[in-house]
Amino acid sequence: MVKRNENIAKLQAGYLFPEIGRRKKALLEKEPDAKLISLGIGNTTEALSTHIVEGLHKEVTRLGTSEGYTGYDDDAQAQAFLDKLKTRISNNWYNGIISPEEIIVSDGSKPDCGRLFFLFGNNVSVAVQDPAYPVYVDGSVMIGATGNYNSDTEEFDGIEYMRCTEENDFFPDLSKVKRTDLIYICSPNNPTGAVATKKELKELVDFARKNRSIIIFDAAYSEFIREKGLPRSIFEIEGARECAIEVSSLSKPAGFTGVRLGWTIVPKELKFDDGQSVGKDWQRVVGTLFNGSSNIAQWGAIAALSETGLSEIKETVNYYMENAKIIKNGLDGLGIKTFGGVNSPYIWAAFPGKKSWDVFEDILTKAHVVTTPGAGFGKAGEGFVRFSAFGKTSDIKEAVKRLQENLK
Amino acid sequence: MVKRNENIAKLQAGYLFPEIGRRKKALLEKEPDAKLISLGIGNTTEALSTHIVEGLHKEVTRLGTSEGYTGYDDDAQAQAFLDKLKTRISNNWYNGIISPEEIIVSDGSKPDCGRLFFLFGNNVSVAVQDPAYPVYVDGSVMIGATGNYNSDTEEFDGIEYMRCTEENDFFPDLSKVKRTDLIYICSPNNPTGAVATKKELKELVDFARKNRSIIIFDAAYSEFIREKGLPRSIFEIEGARECAIEVSSLSKPAGFTGVRLGWTIVPKELKFDDGQSVGKDWQRVVGTLFNGSSNIAQWGAIAALSETGLSEIKETVNYYMENAKIIKNGLDGLGIKTFGGVNSPYIWAAFPGKKSWDVFEDILTKAHVVTTPGAGFGKAGEGFVRFSAFGKTSDIKEAVKRLQENLK
Repeated sequence: MVKRNENIAKLQAGYLFPEIGRRKKALLEKEPDAKLISLGIGNTTEALSTHIVEGLHKEVTRLGTSEGYTGYDDDAQAQAFLDKLKTRISNNWYNGIISPEEIIVSDGSKPDCGRLFFLFGNNVSVAVQDPAYPVYVDGSVMIGATGNYNSDTEEFDGIEYMRCTEENDFFPDLSKVKRTDLIYICSPNNPTGAVATKKELKELVDFARKNRSIIIFDAAYSEFIREKGLPRSIFEIEGARECAIEVSSLSKPAGFTGVRLGWTIVPKELKFDDGQSVGKDWQRVVGTLFNGSSNIAQWGAIAALSETGLSEIKETVNYYMENAKIIKNGLDGLGIKTFGGVNSPYIWAAFPGKKSWDVFEDILTKAHVVTTPGAGFGKAGEGFVRFSAFGKTSDIKEAVKRLQENLK
Repeated sequence: MVKRNENIAKLQAGYLFPEIGRRKKALLEKEPDAKLISLGIGNTTEALSTHIVEGLHKEVTRLGTSEGYTGYDDDAQAQAFLDKLKTRISNNWYNGIISPEEIIVSDGSKPDCGRLFFLFGNNVSVAVQDPAYPVYVDGSVMIGATGNYNSDTEEFDGIEYMRCTEENDFFPDLSKVKRTDLIYICSPNNPTGAVATKKELKELVDFARKNRSIIIFDAAYSEFIREKGLPRSIFEIEGARECAIEVSSLSKPAGFTGVRLGWTIVPKELKFDDGQSVGKDWQRVVGTLFNGSSNIAQWGAIAALSETGLSEIKETVNYYMENAKIIKNGLDGLGIKTFGGVNSPYIWAAFPGKKSWDVFEDILTKAHVVTTPGAGFGKAGEGFVRFSAFGKTSDIKEAVKRLQENLK
């Protein structure tokens, strides 16, 4: 008999977003005419911009021709296209601080996290921000890098949870953090919307180097940073090349949630304790378990990372950030304390003393607005609800109006 | 210090195909004017067909509009498109023997194998055909489901290698196979080109059910079957729904090596020994570590699986199978014994008494033709070289001419 993977059996409930989907569905079964507005899952809603669409069309046309057709990345033409994309990521996204050879292009940050669990295996200890994007914990559990779920603490044994609260400005107090092999950090943060400052990240890098830990830095929301002087990449921090990996993605800034394109940076300097290159093992993992992102998506990304594409991305990001302002102002008007929403598309709204799933249900049933309950991101998310600014402005305004009518 | 993942350290050499790439590159450095013809990696070369290109263009156009834009699969429109694709896979690929709810759409078979390693974890025993597509062994090693590399046997301890040789018609003699939790079977086989008969697969299913094993059936080449009565899916076999998972892909038949779309079938009846549904855990793994295939690729697949698309696919497959015939005839003419190439795009050519990497080097340096050395697929591949029929017919003819001139 084949035994169920005990690590998967450790997971308690469903993955957060499918669970929200089930609750939406349940409401719609009870009230089929309800006009739900989703500010829950961070799903982009705005059309791909003109230049990106042109880039995608060009590649589709090319794939329909005998000369232009490319398959796997192993032929010279496909390789040249991929190199072009890596050069644009290097120059136009990272201003040259990362070299093209350190970039592995993928189908997005979430699948890259999946492959990173494979890279490090089950013999590593893990620290995560609390609250955090659920994949870091769930994936660590699934690969076997944690202990069991502890019903007393309501957390997984063996994970170092780094609390991120109003008191510490939603960045871990590293003096209280135990040494682990891996440290997952997301900035701009999902769900709190907080952005780590250069000073905070410098402390983190020093902490990781002192402890010989590796930081997995999730920069998927870097394009949403509006205020000057805030770091967009961990590699802006001195010393990070010896201790960090960065995952990033076009999903949110360029509307690629459906197109699928991201990348991972593993610097040349990053080594295991035996001196072996981490990047070399990473290439091996990716080469064995992945066959490259869609070449159509690659050409969309080449267009997105051109001068025109980048200025179009800025417009899309501006659109969502205007939404963020509307949500934030609306909640402020209701006397609800909010965080984030200034350098991030997420607004982290405090409902002290309340259970976040209750607040979620309350907003869902009364206002027909879908949010994400903070508890879904970890224990320190209890008492909060996340509002996503991804949506059409007309819907956002309607949602805020309904909140004002129903949450007073 | 972060320790290197010991399971990745177990892997001996590089993944086969990058290694071939390195050798190609080395030759081109020595002889920059060499006109290499690649019959090595199974990379498709023919343009996407008209109807598929139209489907891709339509979706790109739609993504550029406010009404048509879709992101993640969670919105109603994206869900409806995905359901449409699953219905086509169910009806037009499987003639209704698989229901849409049993299909999870992905970015291809190789990444699905990666996620399957995650699903079963490191506490399972594994049987693979020898020779086999290297991912089954390498992935099993990387997840920790095997022992160390044994330099005496030149194989990994803890893996049950099922020899596939001329004597057993390249299908394992199950009376000699030890019981394992998982049994990887690929038919039409990569690399031998052999197709399992209904009788063979019925024996396999009975063997798996008796032993309570799970078969992972790789059907990526099913469209290349020409002879009547040969099974295209494990689910044509009675009892398979209780003991098998199938991975499949549009990469080879529809030229989607670069577009990226495949799927996995986990039947409702498949359970772990505690009665838990395998499909439920599979959805959890996929939901946590993957964000869906590109929605552009999904629309390419919807087009590919229409009546028009399927008849175009047949033409593309015919083209490659004509190539297979040319290679097979050419090698026959040289007195080289070949297998496969009739219901599969791969020709498995015997060079008894020779080392396959030597034959590879010999053909590469003399004829400037890239093949794949049999030893890269396992011990029983020694003495064989795989020729791939993916290529332009003019190149195939030229390659055969060069082989005739240089291998006499």
